[in-house]
Parts: sequence; structure tokens; C-alpha cells
Amino acid sequence: MAALTFELQASGIAGSEARAGKIRTDHGEIITPIFMPVGTVGSVKAVTKQQLKDDVQAQIILGNTYHLYLRPGTGVLEAAGGLHRFNGWDRPILTDSGGYQVFSLAGNRKIKEEGVWFQSHIDGSRHLFSPESVMDIQRSIGADIMMAFDECPPYPSEYHYAKKSMELTHRWLDRCIQRLAETPDKYGYTQNLFPIVQGSTYKDLRDASCDYIASKNAVGNAIGGLSVGEPEDMMYEFTESCASRLPFNKPRYLMGVGTPWNILECIHRGIDLFDCVMPTRNGRNGMLFTTQGVVNIRNKKWATDFSPIDPGLPNEMSQYYNKAYLRHLFVSEELLGLQLASLQNLSFYLWLVGEARKHILGGDFVSWKNEMVQIVKQRL
Amino acid sequence: MAALTFELQASGIAGSEARAGKIRTDHGEIITPIFMPVGTVGSVKAVTKQQLKDDVQAQIILGNTYHLYLRPGTGVLEAAGGLHRFNGWDRPILTDSGGYQVFSLAGNRKIKEEGVWFQSHIDGSRHLFSPESVMDIQRSIGADIMMAFDECPPYPSEYHYAKKSMELTHRWLDRCIQRLAETPDKYGYTQNLFPIVQGSTYKDLRDASCDYIASKNAVGNAIGGLSVGEPEDMMYEFTESCASRLPFNKPRYLMGVGTPWNILECIHRGIDLFDCVMPTRNGRNGMLFTTQGVVNIRNKKWATDFSPIDPGLPNEMSQYYNKAYLRHLFVSEELLGLQLASLQNLSFYLWLVGEARKHILGGDFVSWKNEMVQIVKQRL
Ligand SMILES: [Zn+2]
Ligand SMILES: [Zn+2]
Repeated sequence: MAALTFELQASGIAGSEARAGKIRTDHGEIITPIFMPVGTVGSVKAVTKQQLKDDVQAQIILGNTYHLYLRPGTGVLEAAGGLHRFNGWDRPILTDSGGYQVFSLAGNRKIKEEGVWFQSHIDGSRHLFSPESVMDIQRSIGADIMMAFDECPPYPSEYHYAKKSMELTHRWLDRCIQRLAETPDKYGYTQNLFPIVQGSTYKDLRDASCDYIASKNAVGNAIGGLSVGEPEDMMYEFTESCASRLPFNKPRYLMGVGTPWNILECIHRGIDLFDCVMPTRNGRNGMLFTTQGVVNIRNKKWATDFSPIDPGLPNEMSQYYNKAYLRHLFVSEELLGLQLASLQNLSFYLWLVGEARKHILGGDFVSWKNEMVQIVKQRL
Repeated sequence: MAALTFELQASGIAGSEARAGKIRTDHGEIITPIFMPVGTVGSVKAVTKQQLKDDVQAQIILGNTYHLYLRPGTGVLEAAGGLHRFNGWDRPILTDSGGYQVFSLAGNRKIKEEGVWFQSHIDGSRHLFSPESVMDIQRSIGADIMMAFDECPPYPSEYHYAKKSMELTHRWLDRCIQRLAETPDKYGYTQNLFPIVQGSTYKDLRDASCDYIASKNAVGNAIGGLSVGEPEDMMYEFTESCASRLPFNKPRYLMGVGTPWNILECIHRGIDLFDCVMPTRNGRNGMLFTTQGVVNIRNKKWATDFSPIDPGLPNEMSQYYNKAYLRHLFVSEELLGLQLASLQNLSFYLWLVGEARKHILGGDFVSWKNEMVQIVKQRL
């Protein structure tokens, strides 16, 4: 089988770094820009695989190494023949490195040169994540795209801490690359590695990290450590400078971003891949992202609004169910409400990146984006 | 539009009272015997209407008058144009009378000749359900089949209490019939009334109640007050005697029953319609009903069993997902687990009544039933 490839289909729009492309993996193609729904433990919360394909039209989903390592564990995943066989998702899967999750376990983890010792949030048991073990785990999960093991420093971080952290991330990257080279693909298809740029909010560190990452000539590259609490403008600024410094002809993945308007602004700055828990998490809280703007579906104003959940979205569920019913489901704490809101938000995110792609291919991305950012931001 | 009709398609199998039939309503046909998924507040818990149609193949669902009256309330339902418009279910809907729910509010309700005063479980507000108000509410909900307002005595009940309660139920029935006659169908299609047999566990009361109910010549009849804690054999005995005393050429609905084997045994005794919260409620607790028997999906034994959830069920979800994955979803407390288990159990119940119908039409129902009861009862 073959390593991941990226074909650039459109770029060079006046006043924008936006691009349209096509990624090929052994589990099929991904057209970009794309949003990847997050399937933490191998399940995109409250959504079936059939709905992910038919309603959301997801092309690739993300799995969390930390969660999958703890439950069901690599033993079960290997016995199944990998996550694709286990959860029934036969399109590409990307796994994070687990780094972000273990660093979030404040107080329960210890960072060393060898890796990170941490305690399970489930049973308190102690584990080591190292560049090597994390490559092995992602092999066992069967990810099509594996992420390098990195340290994601909090915002704000002191310059010297950020620098040391970035250098550690670079050394860990080298160990990841070596481990990958020493181990075979686990299930017959190619498993690809994306390195991750760090450097906190320091321009010289970000530049150095981009150059180091770029020098590895990986099949794709990621930008980490953003959208961790810094001002939105700062996030845009670093996204722009990193994207411009990473290889032009390789896909660029901005990790953990973000709102619909964040995604549009970062497509504009040259990003191809996105993931975020926001559509599912906010959906479960009754916050809907729609083609008309943001809806708090619990609001009394929707009690007798029988218009479709999102009249502008060409998605069966969003047309079939009305706002008053969805509000009723939330007020009554019915599980179906969580499902429909998750479906609406994921479908909207996928629709949004698809529309962005059309306007990149059509050449009028910038004016469309400027208008759309205003629409999707407004509160209905 | 036209009143509900029932066409008997098969009966008279040697050694069985089982029948196959077809009910026609203004929202379409229902082939019997049939199981009706319970959609308490207008949502079959954790299941979309698309899944109810495509995967479960439900023909009719049940709504709870008590819950729908409190939330979203008749004002919203009338503004929507009825529950069908509100929740997007365009096939027949049956509503219970609310009686069973308000009698369950022990201490918070008071039974009088006029009706029942009760307190909302949501905000403690006081309300009266009377035969007249309950007819009006079911009209507003837009039920195709409305249930008479009855008192369902607990098990065990003293003879004299049971007798007085039954007599009250009969007087309430007359008031329901009168109210129905005085009020028009709310949304253009015919809304039909089923009276309910009561009489607790006393043969003479049950007989008297059946005869009284039968004398009303309703388009269908229901048996209430069973499966409320009495021994299974007693439930079968009263089901048999009631079914045989109710009109032969009208559908017979046994309320709130039950397990898969209960349903088979009661089809055998001449029942056409069933409802029960068991498939969805037990499903959410990880108890699966399958074509091979009962599965506790949380059990460690399924951790690496990658066989389909139910290899014998011709249902996409039950084939697509494996037991190990479903167990993982339950152990990880993922919402998708509740959805898949609910889908499995409802699909199984609908499959079971469909198979029963085939064997009634084929004439070998009794031997098939006797074998199937053993299979579906066993714990895997
Ligand atoms: Zn995010
Ligand atoms: Zn029941």
C-alpha cells in the first residue's frame, strides 16, 4: 500500500492563502479543506457511523490515543484487527498522540526526557507515554495518520519554558520518526506520521519550530499549541506565520480549532485540516451552529418555532425536525436532543468546509468568507 | 376520513388463539400482531424517526398523555398541528390516557368521581385529569388511537376496592364516549377510542368488565391492569380469559406487556397489539434482547467477541456493530451505546412480532412459538 499523498487542486487566490486539495490514503480520499469529527474513545459522541457517512458526510474522524489506550486498550484493538474493524468506520482515521490529554491531567503527570508519567483518570494506575510507546499504540490502534508525541505548553508560558519545551518536542519527534522506521505497518495499510509545530506564542520559537518540522519532509504537518486560551487575533497571527513557513505542497493541520469563524479565517491563512470537540460538546449543551448563525435551542423563543432546525443546510435531519421539537427534547432531557444537536453541528461544520472548498475552486473565497464569518457569528 | 378498521387475515390455528390482521387508520396500515415502541414525550428514547422507520420498522408508536400534557403542553402541540407535525412521525400514534402515570404518583394524587387531582412531577403544580379533559388532551395531541380514562388498581388489590375501581372505570368510559361524540376530530383525520378492561385479578370482575367493554362496540379494545406485579401465570390466565371474551373481529391491545416471551405467549392467547418500555429501558441498562437470547453487554465475556450484536437479526445496525464495541461503549459511558442497544432491542421486538405473524399465516405458530420462547428466554 502507499504513503499518504496530497494533490493541490487550487491555490493562489488574490489576497488569500486558501487552498483546495485532495489527500489520498489507503482508506480512501479526503478532499480539503476538511473538518474531522472527534471520536474520543472510537465513537463520535451520540452519532452512528451510518449518520456520520450519510448525514454528516464525514471523510475522516479523529481518535484519542490516551482514551483508546486506557479503554478498550491495545489488546482488544489488536484482537479486533484495529480500530476500523472495532468501530466499523472504514474511512481514514487520525489519532492524536495523547500528549495533550496527559498534560491536561495537572498534578497527575511528570514530564521527563524519556516521556511523561501519568495517572489514569479512570483507576489512578500509573503509565508512561514516550515517543516510542505512543508510536506503538497508534500502530495498534491502526491510525492512517499518526501524530508525533509533543508537549503542548499552556498559555501563557514563560519564554524559557516554551523554548525548552519546544526543544524537547523536537527531540521527541526524532525518536518518533526513528520508531516509526523500525516498526512495520500493523494491518497492511500505510500508517503516516505528522510532526507538530510548537513554540507557544513566541515568534522566533514558532519560526524555528516550523523550520525544524519542515526539515523532516513528512507527508503532512501540524500546528499545535494554539487555541489554548490566547487571544483570537494571536491565534490567527501564528496560524498565518506557521502555515506560510510549512511546506506548500503538504497538508497543514491546525489542531483543536475551533469555532466556525475560526475555521474560515484559518482556511484563509492556508490550513487544510481541522478538528475540534466544539460541534459535539456545544451541541450537547444546546448550542447549535447553523447556516443562519448561533442558536441557543433551550431559549423560550423557540418554543413554537416550527421552522426546520436549519433551513439552509441540505441535511435530512436538519430539515426533518423543527426547532420547537428540538427545544422540547432539550427541556425534557431526552437523549434524542443530544443526537440531533450533534448531527446538526457536525453536518454544519462539514457543509461549511465544503462550501469553502467550492469558493476556493471558484476563486471568490475571500468575499464569500468575509460575508460568511459575519453570518455564522451572529446570535439568533 | 374513516374510522379505524380491522381485517382478520388468519386465525383458527389448532391449539392457539393467535391471529394475523390488518388495521387501517388515516395515517396508514398496521399489520398485526404488532409491538408499539413507547415515545414518552414524543420521542422514542435515543432513536430518530428515520431509524424507527428504516431500522426498527415500527408501524405505530405510543405517546404518553401525562408527559405530553405537562411538556410541551397542548398549546404547543396545537400550534404545531398535532404531535405528528411536531415530532415528524407520520405513521399512526396511540396515546395512553394518562391514568396509569397519575396513579403512579403515590401520595400526590386524589381519585374522585369527577377525575383525578394530581401534582406535576416537574413543578408540583396541581391538575385535574377527568374523562372529559383526557379526551380533549388526546384530541389536541392528535392521537389516531385514544385510550379511555381508567383507574389501574395496584396488585394486589382487595376485592371490594377492585370492584369499586372497575365500576368507576366503566362510568368514566361512558363519559369518555360521550365527550368523544361531542367533539370533532382535531386535525381532519379520524381519532378512535379504545376502552380498557380492568377488574384486577378477580375472574368475575374481569368477566364483567370484558362484557361491559364489549357492549360498547368500540373499534378496538384494550386489557389494562396486568403485568403490574402479579405472577406471570396469572397474567397469562387473565389475558386468555379476557381475550376470549372481547369481540373476535376487533383488535385487542394488552397494555404494558412485556418480555419477548410474554409477547409470544400473549399472541398465542389472542392479543394483537403490545407496548412496553422494556426494550428501550433495559437497552439503556445494557440488557439486550436478541434472536439468540438475553445478553448483558457489560459482561467481561464480550470484551473480545467481535461477532455482530445480533447475527440473527436482519437489521443493519445489529450486523454492522460488534458485541465487543458495544460493550466498550457501555463501559466508557458513551451515548452511542444507549442508542445502539435501544435500536437492537426495538428492532428485535419488531422482528419477533413479524416472525410470529409469518408463522400464524403459515399455520405452524404453536410449534414455532414453543421453540422460540425457550430461545429468547435463555441468558447468553
Ligand atoms: Zn477545539
Ligand atoms: Zn412493560
